[in-house]
Amino acid sequence: MQATSNVGEILNMNNKLHCTVSLAQINPTIGDYEQNSKKIFEFMSSENSKSADIIIFPELALFGLPIGNLISRFPFLVQQNLKWINELAKHSGKTAVAIGFVNTENINNETVYYNSLAIIRNKKIEKIINLSPLQQNTMNLCSDNTYEINGTKYLFLNSDIENIEKNINKFNTTNTDIIIICKSLKTGEAASYKKHEILSNLSMKYNLAIAHINQSGLSDNFLFDGESCIYSKKGKLIAVANSDEEILSADIYNCFEKELINITYKNTSEFSLNYEYDLERTYKTLIKGIRDYFAKNNLKRAVLGLSGGLDSSICAVLLTDALGKDNVLGISMPSALTGNESKSDAKNLAENLDINYFEYEIKPVVNTVNSIFNKMFSDIETKWNCRYDKSYTQDNVQARSRAVYLWGISNEFDSCIPIATSDKSELYMGYATINGDMSGGYAPIADITKTKLFALAKWLNKNRDEKNAIPENIILKKPGAELAIDIKTGKPLLAEDALMPYEFLDEIIWRIETKKQTYTEILKSDFLYETHTKITKEQKKEWIDKFFKRMSSALYKWSIMPPSVIIGDYSINKAIYKHPLTSRIDYKEKSAEDIAKLFEK
Amino acid sequence: MQATSNVGEILNMNNKLHCTVSLAQINPTIGDYEQNSKKIFEFMSSENSKSADIIIFPELALFGLPIGNLISRFPFLVQQNLKWINELAKHSGKTAVAIGFVNTENINNETVYYNSLAIIRNKKIEKIINLSPLQQNTMNLCSDNTYEINGTKYLFLNSDIENIEKNINKFNTTNTDIIIICKSLKTGEAASYKKHEILSNLSMKYNLAIAHINQSGLSDNFLFDGESCIYSKKGKLIAVANSDEEILSADIYNCFEKELINITYKNTSEFSLNYEYDLERTYKTLIKGIRDYFAKNNLKRAVLGLSGGLDSSICAVLLTDALGKDNVLGISMPSALTGNESKSDAKNLAENLDINYFEYEIKPVVNTVNSIFNKMFSDIETKWNCRYDKSYTQDNVQARSRAVYLWGISNEFDSCIPIATSDKSELYMGYATINGDMSGGYAPIADITKTKLFALAKWLNKNRDEKNAIPENIILKKPGAELAIDIKTGKPLLAEDALMPYEFLDEIIWRIETKKQTYTEILKSDFLYETHTKITKEQKKEWIDKFFKRMSSALYKWSIMPPSVIIGDYSINKAIYKHPLTSRIDYKEKSAEDIAKLFEK
Repeated sequence: MQATSNVGEILNMNNKLHCTVSLAQINPTIGDYEQNSKKIFEFMSSENSKSADIIIFPELALFGLPIGNLISRFPFLVQQNLKWINELAKHSGKTAVAIGFVNTENINNETVYYNSLAIIRNKKIEKIINLSPLQQNTMNLCSDNTYEINGTKYLFLNSDIENIEKNINKFNTTNTDIIIICKSLKTGEAASYKKHEILSNLSMKYNLAIAHINQSGLSDNFLFDGESCIYSKKGKLIAVANSDEEILSADIYNCFEKELINITYKNTSEFSLNYEYDLERTYKTLIKGIRDYFAKNNLKRAVLGLSGGLDSSICAVLLTDALGKDNVLGISMPSALTGNESKSDAKNLAENLDINYFEYEIKPVVNTVNSIFNKMFSDIETKWNCRYDKSYTQDNVQARSRAVYLWGISNEFDSCIPIATSDKSELYMGYATINGDMSGGYAPIADITKTKLFALAKWLNKNRDEKNAIPENIILKKPGAELAIDIKTGKPLLAEDALMPYEFLDEIIWRIETKKQTYTEILKSDFLYETHTKITKEQKKEWIDKFFKRMSSALYKWSIMPPSVIIGDYSINKAIYKHPLTSRIDYKEKSAEDIAKLFEK
Repeated sequence: MQATSNVGEILNMNNKLHCTVSLAQINPTIGDYEQNSKKIFEFMSSENSKSADIIIFPELALFGLPIGNLISRFPFLVQQNLKWINELAKHSGKTAVAIGFVNTENINNETVYYNSLAIIRNKKIEKIINLSPLQQNTMNLCSDNTYEINGTKYLFLNSDIENIEKNINKFNTTNTDIIIICKSLKTGEAASYKKHEILSNLSMKYNLAIAHINQSGLSDNFLFDGESCIYSKKGKLIAVANSDEEILSADIYNCFEKELINITYKNTSEFSLNYEYDLERTYKTLIKGIRDYFAKNNLKRAVLGLSGGLDSSICAVLLTDALGKDNVLGISMPSALTGNESKSDAKNLAENLDINYFEYEIKPVVNTVNSIFNKMFSDIETKWNCRYDKSYTQDNVQARSRAVYLWGISNEFDSCIPIATSDKSELYMGYATINGDMSGGYAPIADITKTKLFALAKWLNKNRDEKNAIPENIILKKPGAELAIDIKTGKPLLAEDALMPYEFLDEIIWRIETKKQTYTEILKSDFLYETHTKITKEQKKEWIDKFFKRMSSALYKWSIMPPSVIIGDYSINKAIYKHPLTSRIDYKEKSAEDIAKLFEK
């Protein structure tokens, strides 16, 4: 498992001889000391590690990340993790081992907790380094963050990638040989893309080797995707792990330069439908997300509705690849509005994937509910004079009936959850039914926009071992929920007619997320959509207005979405987007003159 | 609206003559600059305020609280709030006005945001005080936090109540006359109970007047409940507002002592069913929560299922008091298992409250779904050999059918949401159905345990204008969801038989929340329940084991609960309890010996 390299030059530019640093980027489960310790113990006692000077585990490797407020709710967890660290220490040998854990100290009669490293060696804890306080308002102790072994001096930092330099400067690095950054990075954080450039530049600037130890694996919505790495004091990459490897080692004095890994991040200055550069990372992230969420939550099986549409089809492919085809159950649940094409598309997809598949109509349930609704709504109208002329009740009853089926299956079969198939574009628009398609135990694609999903579908058809699993028709046809009839055409209403063209919608999302553009700036922008389709100013304004209006009403739905892996920096997942429901934002900026006029009234 | 007092002595112990401080604890809506400015402007220009030396608004009064990450997502909001502050300044006169807003500065080419105060006077901004940075990792500027007018010197602090002394000590207070704490406190925070004692002691210690300006009103789950107050330099309370008043004033030199308000907090050292001391606060908090959530989210009506049980009955009373009886719709939705008693209890309650009320059976829907389930589950069994011998599918179908009715009504009638009636004891146990009774647009009682709800029901019957609205039978009978038959009795399964006695359950909750006790400590404790009912050690262990097991599985349900007002410090509301789903906690502590043995394997 040792990552070595045959490329590049040997970088033996040091008067010191050897120092092998091993980084063990394990995948812990929060609170599971027994399994996490077992993993740590295995790496500590492996043959490989005996040749290393030091093995370094991720921050909080024993406890897991993120901690949330588990410690304040259950302080016994801290006492327990101390016991496990002590026991691990008893099994240490001549190789030093640095393990992230939660340390506690009593300062001025207050119990304070730290994100700390225990350095264990020769059957005891040799040193504890308090990296950073775990509660707000705790003073950061000016601790000695260094450790020396076999003539090499290490400086340990728990620092954001962007602030490393600021943090290095707090220490005297005169005799330091290598800086170890113990900070787990979530995939999709802009920092993770810039990491290599920053580390390379800093190692040159300070004439020091620098290593970054990340963790791998998922916690709810956050995927930590490894890529731990070591840079020589000349700024050359000498070792890097992908997220599947759990350990990598390098001799920081006698080292080979590795080829810099491809940085797939492309911070485009223009909106584009070319997602090619990011599809492999996206796919791998989604698969790891599903697999780890299921494994860590003792889940095994997934059931989902197959509509013959893009979203459920992509979810089916991802679940098949992550869980195995026998653990996936696709249910086609046609209504009166479901076309034959949709039914056959769903069936073909299931056959291509060879997953379990059945078809059950929802008509009997929808009809029964409607016969009750008829009387119910008439009764209520006698009391409440506020019945909508046009409501979404009919659309929603269909989606909710389907969810009743899927949750029934989840209740009846062991370790099985229903899948919420909503995508990011539709969630922005609130185009999803509460207790319907947006409900489930996990939402695989909730952080991916529709145009990217189209690109992903094509990529999957091309790059999976089994080619073209997604029937071409699913990718070619226009998306529609088949929940209502378009009065203009007499056919099921298409999503783009209910909302706006997805290409236009996704560009608005891109503009507010990446560019931080305001309503006014977006209105003035030239859209990619306009390069091939002429639209009037009024049409454009109507779509943009609709976007902001629908987004404001969609916040509640975001707040009750199931977990989903976060792919990019601007997810609307509630774990990273804190938008109070009880807010009233006027997205259309007011000028100073407009505001002055309001005061005149 | 000026709060004065006739009790106590006049505290004219200063050589200064007059200084009237007005605190305007308004209820802003996040992001709603127009309405918030309007409120601020009204207080600024009122007759009363012309006699004050200074009017002080809460922290972030213009923006609203909590900000979440609105600013990083929509930076234009900051530019907009600056425009509003400038306009407000143009309307200021000789009275100084301090208004909380978001300030931005450029420091080392980085845009940083501050929780700041603009002090406006004589048509311009006289001073800006940056109270605290709004992003982490921002340096706190050592700003001059003082302001002097008419010979009185003010020091403004944005400090937790617990840390006021530490924060005062950062400043030179030699010439200060009054310290203004601009920090909004959420109801139920322990700090809010200790506030008066701390402020009184500190004003004596520093020989300074101290005022606390809070805000009033709800944001999603957080209720800020006012009680802004002013202490004289002799530690005497000279003015205090309740949460309904929006402004109070006092002359800090020529002042009367007020009677200290009753502090209702009782941090009991033993578990008790005597909730009397907290029921009025609880009721008022619930009512304010519902009313403000509905108002700020443009909602008007609520529909809820009336089962004839305690939870839905209390919800109905609260909604009636908060929204008015015409805006509440109770639906009785009996199943085959619903007893006649439950039906008549529900009906009697609705009649007592005079709310809108109808009854619709769910049998037709349940039967239709079941006929489909029969075939569906047999089909799936041919593929998946993991069907449960005993499942909750039948229980859940009933709860989900009811939710289909309620959400249908919400979709069909304007500004109407369904109510989730789950209580805290049952949520701890996961004793609630996803897409069923735990779904809704708001969950009024999700932070109240069952035994406290029984006490609240009695209190409501005694203290509301209309006495005994809740039929006695509802309070006397044992709770049961009427979703399943108890095979032992042949009657509907009681909740206490499915779970454990509520008195015992609520004491476990109290022990882990308030006492932070571990599994082992709880097991060793003497329970109140045991003082009147003998239970075996095995029974006790079984209940405690069941508690921790069910709690671990309930986390997912907590993560998708609708908003609810937080009543106490240890709510399981996701806004303040961050418990990662993907965690595996061994609540039974292991001894060092147990851990050592695990390593021997």
